[in-house]
Amino acid sequence: MKIRYGGDYNPEQWPKEVWEEDHRLFDAAHIDTLTVGVFTWALTQPGPDVYDFSTLDAIIERAAAAGRRICLATGTGAHPAWLAKAHPEVTRTDFEGRRHRYGQRHNSCPSSPVFRRMSAGIARRMAARYAGHEAIVAWHVGNEYGGACYCDLCAAAFREWLRERYSTLEALNAAWYTRFWSHTFTDWDEIEPPSALTEHWRGPDHTAFQGITLDYLRFMSDAMLTNFRDEKAAIRSADPVTPVTTNFMGLYRPIDYHRWAADLDFVSWDNYPPDDRSAARMALAHDLMRGIKDGQPFWLMEQTPSVTACRDVNPLKRPGVMRLWSWQAVAHGADAVLFFQMRAGRGASEKYHGAVIGHAGRADTRVFREVTALGSELHSLGPVTLGARTPARVALLFDWDSWWALEISDGPSRLVRYLDVVTAYHRALWQLGADVDVIPVTAALDRYDVVVAPALHMIKDGLADRLAGVARRGGTVVTTFLSGRVDEDDNAFPADVPGPLSPLLGIRVDEWDAREATYVNPVTMDGSTFESRLLFELVIAQGAEVVGTYGADFYAGTAAVTRNTFGSGHAWYVGAGLAQDGVDHVVRTVLTRHGLLGPCADLPDVETAVRVTPDGDRLLFVLNHSASPVDLPPACTGTDLLSGHPVRTLGPNGVAVFRHSPAAGSPEIAGG
Amino acid sequence: MKIRYGGDYNPEQWPKEVWEEDHRLFDAAHIDTLTVGVFTWALTQPGPDVYDFSTLDAIIERAAAAGRRICLATGTGAHPAWLAKAHPEVTRTDFEGRRHRYGQRHNSCPSSPVFRRMSAGIARRMAARYAGHEAIVAWHVGNEYGGACYCDLCAAAFREWLRERYSTLEALNAAWYTRFWSHTFTDWDEIEPPSALTEHWRGPDHTAFQGITLDYLRFMSDAMLTNFRDEKAAIRSADPVTPVTTNFMGLYRPIDYHRWAADLDFVSWDNYPPDDRSAARMALAHDLMRGIKDGQPFWLMEQTPSVTACRDVNPLKRPGVMRLWSWQAVAHGADAVLFFQMRAGRGASEKYHGAVIGHAGRADTRVFREVTALGSELHSLGPVTLGARTPARVALLFDWDSWWALEISDGPSRLVRYLDVVTAYHRALWQLGADVDVIPVTAALDRYDVVVAPALHMIKDGLADRLAGVARRGGTVVTTFLSGRVDEDDNAFPADVPGPLSPLLGIRVDEWDAREATYVNPVTMDGSTFESRLLFELVIAQGAEVVGTYGADFYAGTAAVTRNTFGSGHAWYVGAGLAQDGVDHVVRTVLTRHGLLGPCADLPDVETAVRVTPDGDRLLFVLNHSASPVDLPPACTGTDLLSGHPVRTLGPNGVAVFRHSPAAGSPEIAGG
Amino acid sequence: MKIRYGGDYNPEQWPKEVWEEDHRLFDAAHIDTLTVGVFTWALTQPGPDVYDFSTLDAIIERAAAAGRRICLATGTGAHPAWLAKAHPEVTRTDFEGRRHRYGQRHNSCPSSPVFRRMSAGIARRMAARYAGHEAIVAWHVGNEYGGACYCDLCAAAFREWLRERYSTLEALNAAWYTRFWSHTFTDWDEIEPPSALTEHWRGPDHTAFQGITLDYLRFMSDAMLTNFRDEKAAIRSADPVTPVTTNFMGLYRPIDYHRWAADLDFVSWDNYPPDDRSAARMALAHDLMRGIKDGQPFWLMEQTPSVTACRDVNPLKRPGVMRLWSWQAVAHGADAVLFFQMRAGRGASEKYHGAVIGHAGRADTRVFREVTALGSELHSLGPVTLGARTPARVALLFDWDSWWALEISDGPSRLVRYLDVVTAYHRALWQLGADVDVIPVTAALDRYDVVVAPALHMIKDGLADRLAGVARRGGTVVTTFLSGRVDEDDNAFPADVPGPLSPLLGIRVDEWDAREATYVNPVTMDGSTFESRLLFELVIAQGAEVVGTYGADFYAGTAAVTRNTFGSGHAWYVGAGLAQDGVDHVVRTVLTRHGLLGPCADLPDVETAVRVTPDGDRLLFVLNHSASPVDLPPACTGTDLLSGHPVRTLGPNGVAVFRHSPAAGSPEIAGG
Repeated sequence: MKIRYGGDYNPEQWPKEVWEEDHRLFDAAHIDTLTVGVFTWALTQPGPDVYDFSTLDAIIERAAAAGRRICLATGTGAHPAWLAKAHPEVTRTDFEGRRHRYGQRHNSCPSSPVFRRMSAGIARRMAARYAGHEAIVAWHVGNEYGGACYCDLCAAAFREWLRERYSTLEALNAAWYTRFWSHTFTDWDEIEPPSALTEHWRGPDHTAFQGITLDYLRFMSDAMLTNFRDEKAAIRSADPVTPVTTNFMGLYRPIDYHRWAADLDFVSWDNYPPDDRSAARMALAHDLMRGIKDGQPFWLMEQTPSVTACRDVNPLKRPGVMRLWSWQAVAHGADAVLFFQMRAGRGASEKYHGAVIGHAGRADTRVFREVTALGSELHSLGPVTLGARTPARVALLFDWDSWWALEISDGPSRLVRYLDVVTAYHRALWQLGADVDVIPVTAALDRYDVVVAPALHMIKDGLADRLAGVARRGGTVVTTFLSGRVDEDDNAFPADVPGPLSPLLGIRVDEWDAREATYVNPVTMDGSTFESRLLFELVIAQGAEVVGTYGADFYAGTAAVTRNTFGSGHAWYVGAGLAQDGVDHVVRTVLTRHGLLGPCADLPDVETAVRVTPDGDRLLFVLNHSASPVDLPPACTGTDLLSGHPVRTLGPNGVAVFRHSPAAGSPEIAGG
Repeated sequence: MKIRYGGDYNPEQWPKEVWEEDHRLFDAAHIDTLTVGVFTWALTQPGPDVYDFSTLDAIIERAAAAGRRICLATGTGAHPAWLAKAHPEVTRTDFEGRRHRYGQRHNSCPSSPVFRRMSAGIARRMAARYAGHEAIVAWHVGNEYGGACYCDLCAAAFREWLRERYSTLEALNAAWYTRFWSHTFTDWDEIEPPSALTEHWRGPDHTAFQGITLDYLRFMSDAMLTNFRDEKAAIRSADPVTPVTTNFMGLYRPIDYHRWAADLDFVSWDNYPPDDRSAARMALAHDLMRGIKDGQPFWLMEQTPSVTACRDVNPLKRPGVMRLWSWQAVAHGADAVLFFQMRAGRGASEKYHGAVIGHAGRADTRVFREVTALGSELHSLGPVTLGARTPARVALLFDWDSWWALEISDGPSRLVRYLDVVTAYHRALWQLGADVDVIPVTAALDRYDVVVAPALHMIKDGLADRLAGVARRGGTVVTTFLSGRVDEDDNAFPADVPGPLSPLLGIRVDEWDAREATYVNPVTMDGSTFESRLLFELVIAQGAEVVGTYGADFYAGTAAVTRNTFGSGHAWYVGAGLAQDGVDHVVRTVLTRHGLLGPCADLPDVETAVRVTPDGDRLLFVLNHSASPVDLPPACTGTDLLSGHPVRTLGPNGVAVFRHSPAAGSPEIAGG
Repeated sequence: MKIRYGGDYNPEQWPKEVWEEDHRLFDAAHIDTLTVGVFTWALTQPGPDVYDFSTLDAIIERAAAAGRRICLATGTGAHPAWLAKAHPEVTRTDFEGRRHRYGQRHNSCPSSPVFRRMSAGIARRMAARYAGHEAIVAWHVGNEYGGACYCDLCAAAFREWLRERYSTLEALNAAWYTRFWSHTFTDWDEIEPPSALTEHWRGPDHTAFQGITLDYLRFMSDAMLTNFRDEKAAIRSADPVTPVTTNFMGLYRPIDYHRWAADLDFVSWDNYPPDDRSAARMALAHDLMRGIKDGQPFWLMEQTPSVTACRDVNPLKRPGVMRLWSWQAVAHGADAVLFFQMRAGRGASEKYHGAVIGHAGRADTRVFREVTALGSELHSLGPVTLGARTPARVALLFDWDSWWALEISDGPSRLVRYLDVVTAYHRALWQLGADVDVIPVTAALDRYDVVVAPALHMIKDGLADRLAGVARRGGTVVTTFLSGRVDEDDNAFPADVPGPLSPLLGIRVDEWDAREATYVNPVTMDGSTFESRLLFELVIAQGAEVVGTYGADFYAGTAAVTRNTFGSGHAWYVGAGLAQDGVDHVVRTVLTRHGLLGPCADLPDVETAVRVTPDGDRLLFVLNHSASPVDLPPACTGTDLLSGHPVRTLGPNGVAVFRHSPAAGSPEIAGG
């Protein structure tokens, strides 16, 4: 037992003599797990009634013979050409109203009965054939669910989904506020998917009716979940035990992963950060992925060992970065470290995507050497981290509904982006060394001392009460501008802003000013001044203490940041678009109150994270994201599990893991 | 009698208990006029043969009971969902050739017989029901007419419109110059709307054939006028007297408002400037709107009391700005000051649009206080300004045909925008305090000393002779680059540029140079140097005096600005894209000649405007658009009608109105 | 006999009285050749069975009567409106899947049987009528072939083209690498044109499958060639001798002009450079056009005498520029200098395009004076240059397949553009005065000392061997990053990069780094440092000498530029995106080795070019592209054929031509 290591492997693309070379190199690199079959539908079902598993059999047997384990995909991430020809309705109709023809991948209409029947059918046959095979350790359904379809089949399914949700047109008309612009629906069939041909202009974020657009986002996420469920049920018909997953995409807007949580046996995700300055962003994504199933460890299903291909510019991962980021995944809860891809394909749009083995099949490349070194390290570490959990006392609320509602809103500012706000607050927590659970708004909050809810636009399901509960028992709640604005239907509360949060926060907001990104209003807090941008709410304290005030414009001197004492705790409201240092100041103040600053809080670019093993050992991960060596503070030293040596300094991109067994006592480990 | 005050009111969106709160607040704010029913078609006609006026009745009765007056909309700015379902052809087909389905507003094909019949039908029923109601002071047809449709019904209607215009295909082929690119039409049915699927690329401004595109713009404007006429006729069938209007949009390119003038009983318009530095632009729009019906006062039908929602960034109107801009409207001819909206709706795309009353229904907000203060001021002022006219001796020609022709032209420069040129000349006149009528090219010019015609691309209808007449009798004509280029069909004159204007201007232009916006050619006039950009015509004096010369490039030293003596007057030609200070110099020289400089010509940001009441009193409006107080010159002091006090200084965003009764003599008032 | 002078003439657009004025002015300007009929299909065939050649007859007779010669167009560059009405399938379906309706030009589906039949039909009738007419010196088929169509007729034709190419689906699936993303085709009819509706996103360069997109580019180029062949065959049925051409567009990506070479009797092209700093770019285009038919002289079919109209900004050609660029064309192989257009049309989208005669019909304009002066100069020069050839010892390989493959590739960088790389190397050769043949990769290389192959992405047809042959016999080969990457099907070689070029170059490349345009890595060569950008290949010398090394990043100190000794010659590899000065350094080193530096190699902006007449005389053209006068070196002086005087200095935009008869000996002429 150890952290799984390997990745996507598509030997159906090359001749069998190459397979031998592959496995020889896999052995050298300590590869133990292969994801197989991700795009094999046309291979395994070359016609409507024709099946051919011979190649897949051979791939699996060859891997099993080498002792490797397999994550087996159903292969439905792209449908075969013959299916689109026979049933054109399996393709998608895009936001512009254009029916697509055969091409690309992730190309199936989620509402198509033919697609649903055929995708479940191939999954069922796969499961019937391979269930119980000793090498198979997981099922991988579809691939990177996403996109959207706007066809008439989806329109009909949307109407069914709406009937289920609203029962009556009266309720729907009320929810969507259809008295506006003469939009009252008098028949379900009058409802069209919100697209460029109906309610939208300037793209998917500009809609005349937020209600219908929000519901379509929910519906489409649910429709694809139905596709996943179809296949999982088909698998379960033959294989009742092997865990089933699909690869998520981290901070991906179109799918509400929280609505999928119950259906996955474990979470896995693909980590393709936009650039090499994404350490904080990746930490957020890991914490979000871990939070989907309440802290259960996840798989890092894909990462590139070197370069991507799909970007306009595809830089190399610098030496050591692939290792650093792999350990970051483990630090945040990964029990598997997998690559896309094991060997580079020769053709089509991913031929220049990085791979463990390149076109020339060499072992003497920098990339293969780094992969091998990490393989060796993982092999040496063994089972230590498996099943370990993050002992977070801080929660950050992440809410797809708020994300959607905020970004499809007309006003106050298109420049305010949900992820920017969330990222700023998570980055502060991360940099200061607090372990953070990123959780849905429906989660229990009892275990947390601090709950941060940036841009919590929508309040639903008794959330206001639960947040109040956190403060009442002595905890701290932090929220920001654009929170507490709308109910579940995206209708403004007929009350002071921030709606149901007002009592907790002890403020009201009558006005908000939005400005271009170049405009700065300085905010003074605790004697220091911080820049703020984009959005400036004019906060009127109704019991709260004013912590920060604006320095400019006609509202100079009025409240920008407040803190309300509520029960034994605090509730902060940040009404201004503070720059990172201002956010850091607020978050540091809060963490200090609760004694939650990490041991490297004063070392920028040094990340710490704690996992607690099933045995109760605390593992402290220390990661140096900078290009310079850093001296670690006393709390972060000891014997590094990776090198087996005492470590007091981390080199550029360096990693260390320290273990503290509770029985032994180990004062040098802080955090959590 | 006083300036009407109020705005759009949509209580059908909220429960009746809120209505009471609304009217209580209206009373507090001196609200006397409500625009009702703008988007109520689905409410009043919930099915093809079903009508329900109960809610509208209640709204009207409640308002009437409070003594308020009503501008009653027919509600056809958006059609009901059931209509689109039953008759899909009532929706529009866009420039990209896509038939839309139900959604948004301003969504009806203007050529659809069903839409024409149904919209007239609901207007007829409304008129039959409410004609003669004492509260109703105006009818509001449709809403913000605009956009375009390219469906087959419009294609057929376009062909009919062309038959009417050209009678024969020979005439049409000649007008459109179809020998070019093998385009000769041999059957009317061969003609397609000019769109992305036919003559256009890179959007609506790039066409292979200017002739067809120009005619389609004219046709579409006329088609929507037909929609207005349909409804007005229906109203007139029951209500022969109440004035009928629709809300225009100021500087809006798609509709040639001059072609609509005769059909409106009075002009009204919605003022949503792009930013808070738009004082000059709004002045131009007001002058244009007033000029549509020959100087008759208009209504400011909509303005936001605080913020918009539809912009990417929606800043607050600063304190005092709403009042300042309201008085600017009055200064330029408004007899009504109305808001969108009286109370904020809770849902859909305008829920964050500013309103007199917010979601919380509070009176103790900054916005409500400012609205109330202005209401009080208007109430105190009473009838003084009603019906007053602007005594302009300067005319600025504004021509949709030239706007269209110039901006759909291939060559010489896409960077030259009609509004930029017009705005620069109007801004100079405005800043220097000249009252200006912005009028169509068909208007009589007899009453003006100065006629400014920026970028008068198209010459038609004997305009050259009428302009010559202005100069002949001692007046001054000013025109610019890209004037006198094409005839009514957008065909170049087979003659020297500027075509029929050449004799008046005493020049010819063989060549013109266009450059990127970063390139500057300095122009020297009267010993000073001014920057010019974008377009540089090489002007050859043929009798005219050279006033300005280029300073750079191979044409350095040649004429850029000329003045021709013609009759007892002058005719200026500005061949270079002068920056604002150069335009100011030309305009100041001209105004000085005619003694038309205003009393605050040397105070930037201080606007003056004169209105003459039916009794012959002159009202001088002085508005300070700056954030600093200004001392007024002696000619602009006296007793301010708004405060009742003598005023010598205007604070930031300050306004004063001085009255001069001709009988009394009042030397301190200048202007006009 | 002399260089033909004149251009496109469309008198069918104006009344006959103007024709007389035209010809009077043509006489004055020494115009001897007119291109007639380019867009006359609707004129000559006003209905399906109606023909009317009367106007064309009159135009031709009037020109012939004046002694002028005619390049007669078939007029099929745009189809008539009646044809589109009767057969909607003759219009194109665009990349977005939208069937167009009648409009614009270059608007015919190349696969439409109706279009093919009708276009050949009108060409046949034209040829039958005018074959043998003494005035007609060339046929001009269609106009500026280009664009693309994605309709179902093209889909069917594409499948036929694929059957021809691959014979079996197995071969096609292998070529397109369809095991990737489940794309195996099991029936030819499953194949759809690669468009926004199938394999593409973000436009024509982003495809999921490079194989299908590459083949569609090849197919579309061939489909339009078929259209040309249709008409040429029709012409040949009546006129077996008059040469047939069509006007190419220089550096135009959609058409692989090399595949058209055999079908044209001579090459002609339209030169519309993007700006007035395009001297090097135009030289490349001329060299490419001359290389299409193995160095045979070409016609400059179109250039503007003054301005374009289709650009956003259309600057004037400065005085002397039109003359300079005309002589540049001759210096690179033109035997005709023609304008678009002889007289400006009054309407539609080219009414502001520059013309020899403007709307006013004046002779006293700057443009007409310059045209007349050049006409006089060409007249005086007489036949000297006709048929002369360029004695190049340097070849630059230009390959549409590499262009396409590189720019449709996902990874490594969308910022690397084929033309940028090619232009940089050609610019270096041009500035250093080497005469260059720009030739296809299939051309024989025996006659060249130096072969430069920038970004030679695709290697096919034994090219690696032929390049090796150049080095083996003592020549020099220069190639760059992104060369040797893929085979004819765009599949990566299963070998070290640069594939088959590795032995010749003595290197291998395991990794490549791409960075944003703002990032610079300095490369040191021969003691100097040069900037490099965008792409940085990590070159591992396998026998080659390291000439340049990176200065930064983790690969600092490793090889960026190498030179391998191979046989008696050299093979250079430039792995970094060197800025122009670095490219210049490499190219100067290579040219120096072979004694090929031109006489003005050290004079930036002075271009030299040599042509050798059929009699063996060497003509040295010297062109000063700067705004300052330059003193010529001794090797570039003598008696200028244009002025008839000795010339030692060239003024701004100046041109001189020196002749050296081999019999006489003339040491002062270098080059070639």
